[in-house]
Formats: sequence, structure tokens, C-alpha cells
Amino acid sequence: MANVDTTLANASAAEAAIFDQLGQELYTAVVSDVLDRLGYRDQAMTADIRPVWAGATLIGRAHTVLSTDVYAVPDDPYEMEIRAIDSVPANHVLVAATNKSTRTCLWGELLSTATRVRGGRGAVIDGHTRDIAKITQMGFPVFATGMRPVDSAGRGKIISFGEPVVCGGVLVHEGDIVIADVDGVVVIPHAVEQEAIELARAKVAGENEMRDFLAHGATLREAYNRFGIL
Amino acid sequence: MANVDTTLANASAAEAAIFDQLGQELYTAVVSDVLDRLGYRDQAMTADIRPVWAGATLIGRAHTVLSTDVYAVPDDPYEMEIRAIDSVPANHVLVAATNKSTRTCLWGELLSTATRVRGGRGAVIDGHTRDIAKITQMGFPVFATGMRPVDSAGRGKIISFGEPVVCGGVLVHEGDIVIADVDGVVVIPHAVEQEAIELARAKVAGENEMRDFLAHGATLREAYNRFGIL
Amino acid sequence: MANVDTTLANASAAEAAIFDQLGQELYTAVVSDVLDRLGYRDQAMTADIRPVWAGATLIGRAHTVLSTDVYAVPDDPYEMEIRAIDSVPANHVLVAATNKSTRTCLWGELLSTATRVRGGRGAVIDGHTRDIAKITQMGFPVFATGMRPVDSAGRGKIISFGEPVVCGGVLVHEGDIVIADVDGVVVIPHAVEQEAIELARAKVAGENEMRDFLAHGATLREAYNRFGIL
Amino acid sequence: MANVDTTLANASAAEAAIFDQLGQELYTAVVSDVLDRLGYRDQAMTADIRPVWAGATLIGRAHTVLSTDVYAVPDDPYEMEIRAIDSVPANHVLVAATNKSTRTCLWGELLSTATRVRGGRGAVIDGHTRDIAKITQMGFPVFATGMRPVDSAGRGKIISFGEPVVCGGVLVHEGDIVIADVDGVVVIPHAVEQEAIELARAKVAGENEMRDFLAHGATLREAYNRFGIL
Amino acid sequence: MANVDTTLANASAAEAAIFDQLGQELYTAVVSDVLDRLGYRDQAMTADIRPVWAGATLIGRAHTVLSTDVYAVPDDPYEMEIRAIDSVPANHVLVAATNKSTRTCLWGELLSTATRVRGGRGAVIDGHTRDIAKITQMGFPVFATGMRPVDSAGRGKIISFGEPVVCGGVLVHEGDIVIADVDGVVVIPHAVEQEAIELARAKVAGENEMRDFLAHGATLREAYNRFGIL
Amino acid sequence: MANVDTTLANASAAEAAIFDQLGQELYTAVVSDVLDRLGYRDQAMTADIRPVWAGATLIGRAHTVLSTDVYAVPDDPYEMEIRAIDSVPANHVLVAATNKSTRTCLWGELLSTATRVRGGRGAVIDGHTRDIAKITQMGFPVFATGMRPVDSAGRGKIISFGEPVVCGGVLVHEGDIVIADVDGVVVIPHAVEQEAIELARAKVAGENEMRDFLAHGATLREAYNRFGIL
Repeated sequence: MANVDTTLANASAAEAAIFDQLGQELYTAVVSDVLDRLGYRDQAMTADIRPVWAGATLIGRAHTVLSTDVYAVPDDPYEMEIRAIDSVPANHVLVAATNKSTRTCLWGELLSTATRVRGGRGAVIDGHTRDIAKITQMGFPVFATGMRPVDSAGRGKIISFGEPVVCGGVLVHEGDIVIADVDGVVVIPHAVEQEAIELARAKVAGENEMRDFLAHGATLREAYNRFGIL
Repeated sequence: MANVDTTLANASAAEAAIFDQLGQELYTAVVSDVLDRLGYRDQAMTADIRPVWAGATLIGRAHTVLSTDVYAVPDDPYEMEIRAIDSVPANHVLVAATNKSTRTCLWGELLSTATRVRGGRGAVIDGHTRDIAKITQMGFPVFATGMRPVDSAGRGKIISFGEPVVCGGVLVHEGDIVIADVDGVVVIPHAVEQEAIELARAKVAGENEMRDFLAHGATLREAYNRFGIL
Repeated sequence: MANVDTTLANASAAEAAIFDQLGQELYTAVVSDVLDRLGYRDQAMTADIRPVWAGATLIGRAHTVLSTDVYAVPDDPYEMEIRAIDSVPANHVLVAATNKSTRTCLWGELLSTATRVRGGRGAVIDGHTRDIAKITQMGFPVFATGMRPVDSAGRGKIISFGEPVVCGGVLVHEGDIVIADVDGVVVIPHAVEQEAIELARAKVAGENEMRDFLAHGATLREAYNRFGIL
Repeated sequence: MANVDTTLANASAAEAAIFDQLGQELYTAVVSDVLDRLGYRDQAMTADIRPVWAGATLIGRAHTVLSTDVYAVPDDPYEMEIRAIDSVPANHVLVAATNKSTRTCLWGELLSTATRVRGGRGAVIDGHTRDIAKITQMGFPVFATGMRPVDSAGRGKIISFGEPVVCGGVLVHEGDIVIADVDGVVVIPHAVEQEAIELARAKVAGENEMRDFLAHGATLREAYNRFGIL
Repeated sequence: MANVDTTLANASAAEAAIFDQLGQELYTAVVSDVLDRLGYRDQAMTADIRPVWAGATLIGRAHTVLSTDVYAVPDDPYEMEIRAIDSVPANHVLVAATNKSTRTCLWGELLSTATRVRGGRGAVIDGHTRDIAKITQMGFPVFATGMRPVDSAGRGKIISFGEPVVCGGVLVHEGDIVIADVDGVVVIPHAVEQEAIELARAKVAGENEMRDFLAHGATLREAYNRFGIL
Repeated sequence: MANVDTTLANASAAEAAIFDQLGQELYTAVVSDVLDRLGYRDQAMTADIRPVWAGATLIGRAHTVLSTDVYAVPDDPYEMEIRAIDSVPANHVLVAATNKSTRTCLWGELLSTATRVRGGRGAVIDGHTRDIAKITQMGFPVFATGMRPVDSAGRGKIISFGEPVVCGGVLVHEGDIVIADVDGVVVIPHAVEQEAIELARAKVAGENEMRDFLAHGATLREAYNRFGIL
């Protein structure tokens, strides 16, 4: 993960390979634990943001979006939505704050297709999505609070992108690394990005030994005394 | 779908075939979109009503039921429940409003069996169901807000059927067409039934072209400019 | 199930076999129904406690745990947690009340491993768990209100075990039999343990006949008149 | 309070005087404490049921009512409502369970007037009321979860009265004594009615001494050691 | 109330007098009842929108505002807020939809002062306000879901005004008449404005007779049979 | 407020006078605004924590307490409660986190009396209190989420005091200054204590001029351009 930032501009393929690799190695629980150790204890989103198909996982940089509920259909209802999606940088994950809307449905199949074509790696929404059957078929990882079959026109409107948002209770900045799997969604603050990833890799390696120790009958007390972790 | 209403009384088998066909062609998102266009913008139920087994879908006419929580076991606790189910017309879907009860469990395997035998096509409940394992085995489509293993006697009581109810936030009249899949549940008002179905069929056909256009790299802006939809 | 209590101390293997057998025969709905009949009408947990992997079921005696949210990391954050798990008796199910915490994550893979090694049969938590992928791989049955990838240190602390707790709205005492499946979680009070299990076995046998009767076209009214149950 | 039951039928004026007297002497906190001591620990309603005007208090026997949300205006929308109110016995308090309805408004000025004329002493509703200004002017004590200016016709319907109901989380039987003040609402089970009232009177007397002791600078430890209560 | 619309532009003082008069005569419950009769049954806001000081009432035309939660402080955080308030027409009531924000505090003393100076008659907010002590001193009627002492900059942003909004569950258009008192908030749709006001005035007159009838001991049944209302 | 910390140990009377003075000058909204300016934007508690009697205000240092719901009555149910209250330092305000309990009632008249005698200045609880009538009579300022007439024994248990807690969404450390009034509750972090108080005093002085400017008819735009605040 060395020099990710300089690599990013001219080598999205290289970063894609790095993220693919990290997606194999890491999982959210271990990332959350190392962020705890680094003093970042509020980086896991609330439990209501779930994968919309079984087995979905993602890792990438956040492309932040802010949406609000509306009650009238404007002339060009999709204008900012189109700009927000057409500007997704490669290797980014759309992270959309809808202020927990239960009215609109921000995401769907067409946005998934358009995002993937630009090199986007998934979407995390504190609101609803639709087109679950087709998104599942595509294997495009989407994490959301629910499904509802409605269109966004006249229900929700994107009002900014690239600005800091709070999604699932976590403050997310454009470009922060986001990792998500069956346990939930974790955001790695930019300031500790490399350190967190290195520590997480090391912790994964260490955990296997403790698991074996327990599986062979050790008490938790013995395991904790030996490994110092839980 | 021409002349569905006159057909209904004497030809439930014919209507069953029509619904089977529509269940293959249509999905809730496209139906919701055409209802938006027709000015019916509040026809999708809230996102807490979910299929109780993966892959469940249904389409049919609503047989409405209203249930309330109770706190004493009456002499014949199931009297109205039995009448409500024994009167399910062929090709109907039980749509039960429990006022979001978390106390009772209105639905279960026996009611599913009794409904299917009468030609019923499923159940939508803004409350709980039980016997999920057996309902899944039957392949009987049930949409509900949750599961709980309790009986309804002394917990909930059906107080009317065939009357308008609000289920999942949508006003449903006896006989309205209901369609449900992984994205949620949509109710088609009787007044626009045929128009909505025809428009939905046309929209399904049109969406494939746009999907291909996007998958080949077009921006959302280009796609929206060409197809005028999102 | 005769003489379960005297058997328990010196014959956990025998009891394990009994529970394995009961787990095959019984399910939560039938147990809930017989408890209703015995006058215990509040024994089913709320519907927000769900299996964390499809198909999980469990039956065993409750090992109760009480956890509270905390906001500072103590010197030995896991002390009571370790004691609570290391003291799980064979054939017990950890039943943890977190007062519906959305902050901490009480359960995970290591606790599952440690519990299974001591002969524990599962966990029921009115809060969150993590490590779903590994728990699923283990086939260890866990029922919880959600998933979140955080550690418990500085978020939740176990403050007692073996005391009565309210979990999912049900008062649970150490040693009560707990049964859980896709429909939810039911607690059998100690006072009616043997009676409830015998009645439940009998009811399972009887239900098959009624199901057939309905499947062959009887109305619910006819079925209820003949069998007297629903 | 001796012989309240035999007195009740032929001497509502006498019972009114007794309730007026008890209303001066007792308050909900002391009644809740003695019910705890008698083993009845779930007799205080949830905190969302509040007096609708400052200073309202009530004591009387429960006249229970069960209401459910409806979505169609029936032919005689007020039929059961009229019967429920016209049957309020003297010295009773209407206790209405609406299953926490936020749709209908069960109570209002006319029902207050009709209830008072029959000798009714107040109303406790786990739902909304209206006509607050006039009810305040009347000095009629009403406890409810909120105010909303709508009529009940087509929104809520009373489906039974005189049956056990759960209101504010407490099971209430027709005739149970209900006491309410700024701290909330407590229900005294019939079985311990006289004992609870006698103990409560005694506790009120005893508390004054401890209050003085504390006010003169004693620590809580000293006070608890001396009086054995808190 | 004849010719209110043509009067409005050049005669705000005349309309102010009309509203002052209506504010004396009418109250929300009677307005809600006549709207029911006219077929508008969803015009009362949810019960969580309350007067922030005892005795506050208001009547006027809606000046609609839509606000959304934000998480970054923009360069000119108050730009739209200033425009929305500086454009309040005389005799209007600010009706603000914040999508039930618990984060920001849209209203306060300065906005109250600025609104009153322009001839505004109050504010209705489905969110929080602050400066309650000073607003109470001013006697400026504000209805809100709660109080919180925070500024809006970086927490909420007004994104439009004059557009239809949903506030407290009711669709409100710019210019609709809004009436609020201790029972809640009701919105009169423009199409039935004059008819509703005339019917409400008539109903107020009629209710006094029924109240007297009941106060003199009539049963509800007798009163309903005679007056046909409840 | 200079040298508050050194003064504290030996001169609680002097600090009491300072707090009395600040309680006259400052209010929560102005303190929240200056904390925003100093970069502390999450210091206002959620809006559900309200004064339990009209006009209650408080200012003092936090004495933090953590309570959890329990379901069994322990041998000495009040042990930690007694220690927590008997250790309230002079000029402190009890700040109790109950994890939003709706079960127990942490506060009441006796604790108010005991706290006041030790020089305590009030209580802030993210849970329930009782004895409102007597607390109001005492004029002891209590802020809570609700009232309920139950005792804490067997419902809630204090498990620590003096530790950091989250109350109303704000992290509070022992000794932080807490200020509360009708707008809500604000916590001043220790690091900016003196700076925040000086800035708040200055802002109070400045606001009067702007208020006059607006009251004389200036638009918000003119006022904002001149004063640079809102």
C-alpha cells in the first residue's frame, strides 16, 4: 500500500489491484480493532446498513454524496444525481448520506452499471436501494438500510458531492478508504491509512494462532493471558 | 389483461394464467415508475415489509383484512380469522393490516395451506408471521415485517375483511392488484389498472436498450439525454 | 426428558443427546403454543432477535449474562467476559442481555469457539455480534439483533452472569431451556419444563393430520371444528 | 377503605368521598413502592402517558376500553364509543388502549363532559386526545400520549369495553384502582387493593422523618442505615 | 373572508384583521372536523409538533421552507436562510420541513424578530428551535418538535422556499392557510378555503348547545341522536 | 472565572458565587455558539433531555454516574447509588447516563435533598426521575427524559461514578462545566473552559445591538452584513 496517493492519479489499475488484494486479506472486524488501537473509535457504521445480497464485500475510496428528501418534482430531477455519478473516480465507492430517508430510493441498477463502468467499486447508502435482483446478478456490492421500488424523482434530490457527510453515524471525507462485509462498514481516516492497513494485516496473521489455541480447549483466560487480545 | 373484471367471476383459471404471465414480465420498480407517471405516487409500501424467503414474488388481487391487538382470549378466538380466510377469492392475495403489531402473529403455515387451496396467491402483512420453514418448503409467497413463533389467540383478532385498509403506508381496497418482489410491494389502484400494466410492459422493453448503452461506457448524462428516463 | 435435572451434573453427554433429539423433533411455534396452554404467554422473544446465518437452530439451557454500555476502556476490559464464558456449563446457551445496545458487539468468533469447546450449544443476544463469516463456517448457532464489526472493550462490559435477565422481552433464569429457530426464540420456564416438552411432542404429531385435511380442500372452519386447533 | 366492594354497588357517593380522601393522601411513587414490596413490580405505566394539563391528578376504578385504528368511515362510527361512555360506572376512570395509535384521537371535551356527568373521575389513554383548552377549563383529569385535533370517525373504533387491556405496558382489569399524578400512572391489582392502600398510607407518614434527617445534613448512607428505605 | 386572494397583495392590514378575528373564533379541532366533511382527511400534522410556550396559537398563510441536514460549514452558511426569511410575505407563517432533523436548530429569536417585523404571524417547524425564553417573552407563536441550543451553520441548510413540502405528515403549499393551537396544527387546502372557514364558524356555534345538553345529564346516545355529531 | 481550578479545593463558596453569577449572565445557546467557534461542535445534548419544572436552569461541574438496567433485586440495591450521591463534590451537577433507560427511575426527591445538602447544584439524567411535585417545590433543577413513579431497586443499578459517560449524546468527563436551561443542556470541555466563558460573555453583550437593529425593520441580510453573526 506504499505510495498509494501518488499512484492514484495515473495508475488506477495499479490501485485496483491493491484494493483487490486487500479485499482478500482484510475484513471489517480486524480493521475496526486496529483503528480502536490508533485512537479512532467511531469508525464503524450503524448496524442498519447491510449488504443487499449475501456475500457482498467492498473496499475502495469514498466518493461522498448528500441527498435530501423533497416533495415536488423539479424540472431536471436527476441533474445533480447524474453529475455525482458521472464524476465517480476510479476505485471509489459511492458513500451516500440521505439522512436515513425512508421516502426515496437513491440507488438502483442503472447507477450501479454507470458506476462500475467508471471503475467504481460499490455503494454504501444510509437509505434505500432498488433493483436488487439485477444488482445481485451483476455482483455489484451495495450496502443499504433497505429496499423500496420507488424512483428518486420528486422524493429525494442530491444536493452536493465531494463534501464531508455523516453516513451510518460516521463522518466520511472524500477519498477515505471504506471497507465493508457481512459484519458492516468501516471507514479508515486518511491520516492513519497506511498504518491501519499494516497493523490490520499483522493482526490477521496473529489471530489464527489464538483461534487454534482456543479450539484445542484452552480457556479464554489462558488465551487472553498468552495473546493479550480478544 | 383486457376484460379482466368480467372474466373474473367465471374464469379464475384464465385470470390465474394472466397473473402467472404478468409475474414473469413485470417487477415492482417498473410498476412503481409508471404509477408515478400516472400521478399515483404513494403506492409502494414501506421498506419493513419483506419476503420471508429468498426469491418470493407474488401478483394478485387484494383480499383485505384488518386485525387488532387484544389482551384476553375470547370464546371463539379464530372466528373472524376463519371467515376471512375461507372467503379468499381465487387469484387473491391476503393483505392484512395489523397496525404494525409486534405482539401477535397473524400468519402461518395452516393459513397458507388453506389460502392456496382456495386459489389464493400469497399474503402481505404489516406484522409478523410464523412457520417460516414450512412456508418456505411450500413455496408460498409471504411478505411480512418479521417472524415470531406465537399464536394469534388472545394476541390479535381480525375485526373486518373486505374493507379498505392501510398496509405498509398504502391504502388498499379489496380487489386492487398487488405485486411484490425483492424490492418491495406495490399496489395498483383499480382506476388505472389496465393502463398501468400496459405502460409497465412497454417500459420493461425500453429499459434494456439503455442498460446496454450504459454498459458500453456512456455517461449517465448521455444516457439520460438519449432515453429521457433514469 | 425424564430426570434431566439429576442427570445434568454427571452426564452432560446424555443430556446433549437428549437436546440433539429434541432439536430434531420440536420447533419454536409448537413450544410457544403449549406454553400458552399452560398459562405462560410471554415466553417468545421479540422479533428483532434473528439467526445470523440461514438455517441456524439451537436448544439448550440458558447461561445468563448481563452487559451494559460503557464509555471508557477499563484496565482489564474483558475480565467479566472471560469469567462469563469460561463458566458456561455443558449444554448451555449463552443468553445475553445488553439492554438492546447498538454500541457494543458482545459476541464474536473467539467466544463462539471458546463456548463450543466447553460444550456450549449457541448464543442468544439482544444486541450485536461480529465475525459472521467465521461463525457461519463453524455452524455455531447465534441469534442476535444485528451485526457490527466493533470490539467490546470500552463499549460494553459484562457486569454479572447467572442472574435473571430480560432478553428480547422475556425473563430468563439460569438453567431455563431455550429453543430457537427461524421463527424466533422461546424460553421454557423451569416449572413446566417436562410437561411442556411432552405436550409439544404430542402436538407435533397431531398437526400433520390437520395439514393434510386442509391440503385436501377443507375449509378452515371444517378443520377447526374437527381438530379444535389452529 | 374497608369493605369497598360491598359499598360500591349502593353507595357511589361514599366511595367518591373515599377516593377524594385517598387522592389527597397518596401519590403514585409511594403506591408503586408498596406494590413492589407486595411483589407486583410491573404496575407503573410507561412514561409517555402524561397529564394534559399541569396539576392533573386522578384516582378511581378502571373502566377499560379497547380501540383499534380503522381506515373507512362505518355507518354508525360512534356506536361502541357511545355505549362505552354511557356505561361508565360512577367513580370509574376510563382506561383506553388504542395500541399506541398516532392516527386517531379517542378522547375530547364531549366525552369528558359525558363521563363527568355519570360520576366518572378521569381518563387514561395510550393515545391522543383533543380539546385540551376546554378540558383544562373543566379541570377534568386526562392522561394521554399526545394531542391531535382530529375526530375518531374513520380513524379509530372502539371494539370492546370491560375486557382486560394493556395500557402503557400494564395489564388493567375492569375495576382495578388507578392512580395518576405528575409522576405517571399506577394500577393497583384487585387482589392487594386494601393492603396496598394501607401500606401506602403508612409509608407516606414515615417518609417525612427521613426527609428531615437528610435535609439536616445526614449522608444517604446514614439515612438508609437508620430508615432502611430509599 | 370573501376575496382574500385579490385583497392580499395590496391590503395586508385588512387580511391581518381577518386573521386576528378568525384566530379568536376558530380552533383546530373544529377546522379538522369540517375538512373531514369536505373529504380532506389528512390535514392535521403529527402530534410531535407542539407549541413552545403555553397558550401559543397562530393562523396565517404558509411560507414554505425546505431544510436538510449538512455536515460541513459552507462559505455563506445562512445565504438561503436569509433569503427565505427576508421574503416572508405579510400574514404568512413560516412552515419549515427539516425532514424531522434532530441535528440542527432551524429557528430562534432573531428569525422570530425578523419575521414579525415583516408582518409574519408565526412558525411551524418539524424540527428544533432555540431561544425559547426570548421567543416566549416576545409572545411569538412557534410550533416545533423540540428545543436544542445549537446554531444551524454546518448542521442544517435551507435548500428551497415557496415549494410544496411535507411538514408533520401534511403536504403544504405556499399560501395555504395554517391554524395551530394547543391541540396541534391543521392546514386548509386552498381549494376549500372559504367553504371550510364558513363551515367551521357554523359548527362552533352549534357545538355549544350539545355541550349544555350533555352537561345537564343526557347520555351520549341521546345527544348524538339529537345533534347528529360527536 | 480566573483560577477556578485552584480555588475549587478550598473555596467552594467562592465558586458557588461565580456559578451563580454565570447562571445569571449566560444561556445555553450562546455557550453552544462559542463552542462551535472553538471547534467543539458536539457539546449540546439531544432534545429529549428536558427540565422537569418550568424555569429550571443550572450550571456547575459534572459528577458523572453510569447506571444500567437490572432484573433482579440485589442484597444491597442502593450501595453504589449511596456512594455516588454521598460523594457529590460541592458545586457539582450529577450527570447520569442510564443508556436511555425507560425501565428504572434513577432520580427522586431524596437524592435531590441529599445532593443539595452537599452543595450539589442539580441533576441531568438521560433517563427518568420521580417525585416531580416535591422537586418542583424544592426548586431543585433536574433535567431528564421523562417521569415514572418507580423505585430503582431491581430496575437499575449504578455501576460506576467519576468515569467518562455519554449522556444525551455528549461525552462528559468528571469536572466538566455543564449549563442547562429551557433550550437544553451544553457541556463545556475542560480544555477551553475559560476561553469559552469569556467569549460567551462577550457574545451576549453583542447580541443586543443586532436584536434592536432587526426590531427596527432591517432585513436579515442587512443585519448579517453589519454584524457578521446570526
